[in-house]
Amino acid sequence: MENSVGIVETKYYTFAHPPNELVLDSGGKLGPITLAYETYGKLNEDKSNAILILHALSGDAHAAGYHEGEDKPGWWDDAIGPGKAFDTDIYYVICSNIIGGCKGSTGPSSINPKTGKPYGIDFPIITIKDMVNAQRHLIDYLGIEKLLCVAGGSMGGMQVLQWLVTYPNRIKSAIPIATATKHSPQQIALNEVGRQAIMADPNWNNGNYYGSEIPAKGLALARMVGHITYMSDKSMEEKFGRQRKNGNGSTKFSADFEVEGYLHYRGNNFVKRFDANSYLYITKAMDYFDIAQGRPLYEVFKGIDAKVLVIAFKSDWLYPTYQSLEIVKACKFAGVDATYCEIDSTYGHDAFLLELESETHLIKHFLRKVYHGYEVLDEYEI
Amino acid sequence: MENSVGIVETKYYTFAHPPNELVLDSGGKLGPITLAYETYGKLNEDKSNAILILHALSGDAHAAGYHEGEDKPGWWDDAIGPGKAFDTDIYYVICSNIIGGCKGSTGPSSINPKTGKPYGIDFPIITIKDMVNAQRHLIDYLGIEKLLCVAGGSMGGMQVLQWLVTYPNRIKSAIPIATATKHSPQQIALNEVGRQAIMADPNWNNGNYYGSEIPAKGLALARMVGHITYMSDKSMEEKFGRQRKNGNGSTKFSADFEVEGYLHYRGNNFVKRFDANSYLYITKAMDYFDIAQGRPLYEVFKGIDAKVLVIAFKSDWLYPTYQSLEIVKACKFAGVDATYCEIDSTYGHDAFLLELESETHLIKHFLRKVYHGYEVLDEYEI
Repeated sequence: MENSVGIVETKYYTFAHPPNELVLDSGGKLGPITLAYETYGKLNEDKSNAILILHALSGDAHAAGYHEGEDKPGWWDDAIGPGKAFDTDIYYVICSNIIGGCKGSTGPSSINPKTGKPYGIDFPIITIKDMVNAQRHLIDYLGIEKLLCVAGGSMGGMQVLQWLVTYPNRIKSAIPIATATKHSPQQIALNEVGRQAIMADPNWNNGNYYGSEIPAKGLALARMVGHITYMSDKSMEEKFGRQRKNGNGSTKFSADFEVEGYLHYRGNNFVKRFDANSYLYITKAMDYFDIAQGRPLYEVFKGIDAKVLVIAFKSDWLYPTYQSLEIVKACKFAGVDATYCEIDSTYGHDAFLLELESETHLIKHFLRKVYHGYEVLDEYEI
Repeated sequence: MENSVGIVETKYYTFAHPPNELVLDSGGKLGPITLAYETYGKLNEDKSNAILILHALSGDAHAAGYHEGEDKPGWWDDAIGPGKAFDTDIYYVICSNIIGGCKGSTGPSSINPKTGKPYGIDFPIITIKDMVNAQRHLIDYLGIEKLLCVAGGSMGGMQVLQWLVTYPNRIKSAIPIATATKHSPQQIALNEVGRQAIMADPNWNNGNYYGSEIPAKGLALARMVGHITYMSDKSMEEKFGRQRKNGNGSTKFSADFEVEGYLHYRGNNFVKRFDANSYLYITKAMDYFDIAQGRPLYEVFKGIDAKVLVIAFKSDWLYPTYQSLEIVKACKFAGVDATYCEIDSTYGHDAFLLELESETHLIKHFLRKVYHGYEVLDEYEI
């Protein structure tokens, strides 16, 4: 547990009780809302060292450290801890889950107080903005006026961009990683395949499967598509090549290439920890996301004081680097202090979870500058 | 019908009757075998002007002209006809279907003579080599000793490579287009998603669905994945952008982006014309294909006399250009007369069906040189 934040617990904040429900982007209302979150490190006296970490599609509030009795650390443990990119010796790090999910926050598998049963697809359509609005309530509750930084990759990056545009006065800096201001038709298409796979599974039953057989085959298929898009042609070649599996199944069309076995394994594992309806709602939120809403992108960035560090990865074909470049260009055009870093990785979209050495270097320096107001060099760099 | 070969008919050749069945790559036997094929133009006296066209995953023998009463021409009508790339005023063009398919040739939906019922998944595993061996019987039957050229794109290109390696003395030239000597793990993974979608459909019923409900949802899903991979990020952006559909469905997760509607349309149409079991068998044949079988690639090309024209497309991410370059490099190393042409198209893998102007230019000149033995220029070029 060296450099680890150690044993941590997920906390829960419940708010927006009726009749003061959260008014959603769609005009609908949702409440009460529970947000799962974790915190690492200590909030300093003037509350100026708080960093909000936001997660991707299938992530959760457990970003770092270990839950009691578990061997696997949080999903970004390599980036959050003493001496790490988000250094918990210096910063107070909060990771917030999202509404619509299934990891302790209010979502389609939560009990609808009006019926006493799970929402299912009676859950309202939610947007990235709704997720961020809910998180803003959490930040209020934690008594933080201004976040030092908001950071996240993939859909986490979309939330970062939304924070930047909706609450520019509540953040000093932002790190959107491997993300986009809006989904391209290819990204929408790939999500739609996943949704159709879930809805084609007879167990989906129009979203009413809680307490009975879940649409496991459909959800596993959706995840298989996902994993193909998270890797690159090259990283797949390096990891699997055309290796055959040992002990092929006995049927004609069972997986016999390693890559097939990997996808099956990933798909079947995902089913144990994720809710199919949440997959539908969250992917829709990503597809509907369009930070500029038809306006020129630079216009929505105008007047933003926060410093921005945009990180992208060369082999990421799900969120190609041109999408990150669009963010930087629009920031520059709007007079926002933005830096662009393209990391030469072969890992594809997964790189944001794997290229920790490069990311740590970039993020550490960026945060120090924002926190202290000037460049602080490591001893070895002097 | 200008420049069209006009009204055409699919013909059928049946051979390999028991006990003289075709011995398959797997060691199994198959027979009798029927191959569907079409021919355009006239075979010359010395039978030196015959070109064999081979099709992709979902293609068929109907490559050019019109079937009586139909408005839609064959799948490569833009490339085959009087004055076109494969000029039927000069050449005798044969398009052969494949075994394992569902377009008139023997496949899993054919009647198994041993049971009197459709084979289903009792149909043996077939390979690209088995497809080509069957085609060789057809070429024998047509009395052609040496084909002027074998040409095809995608899986058609795999068959071209197999002809080149297995029957080098039966062909004078070869045009593999947008293809590979073996599938990468990414290509296998994408096929596996399609197969899993089919087999997850309860109507698939272990391949026994003939005469009852077909696994339409699974097959449509497989095709949706296919269509995403046939286009490019850019061509999707140009064709659909983030346009919304008119008249959204009434449910929450119905398609509302144009690109979603397009994929649904393509998926649902495919189901009407293709057999799910054939999809399993053919994609497996593609995934198992490895022309070098572990040997250095140049070794399998050694001693080949035929001239080779390799065509690839810049934006094709399903069969990336590096796979075509590998073919050319190995040919050069083996002393084979090979030319490489990379066409700067945004259409992705679909380009081989769409970039007709560039292809026509390349193919016309290549064929003339092979046919006449020297370069023949058009009048306007002199």
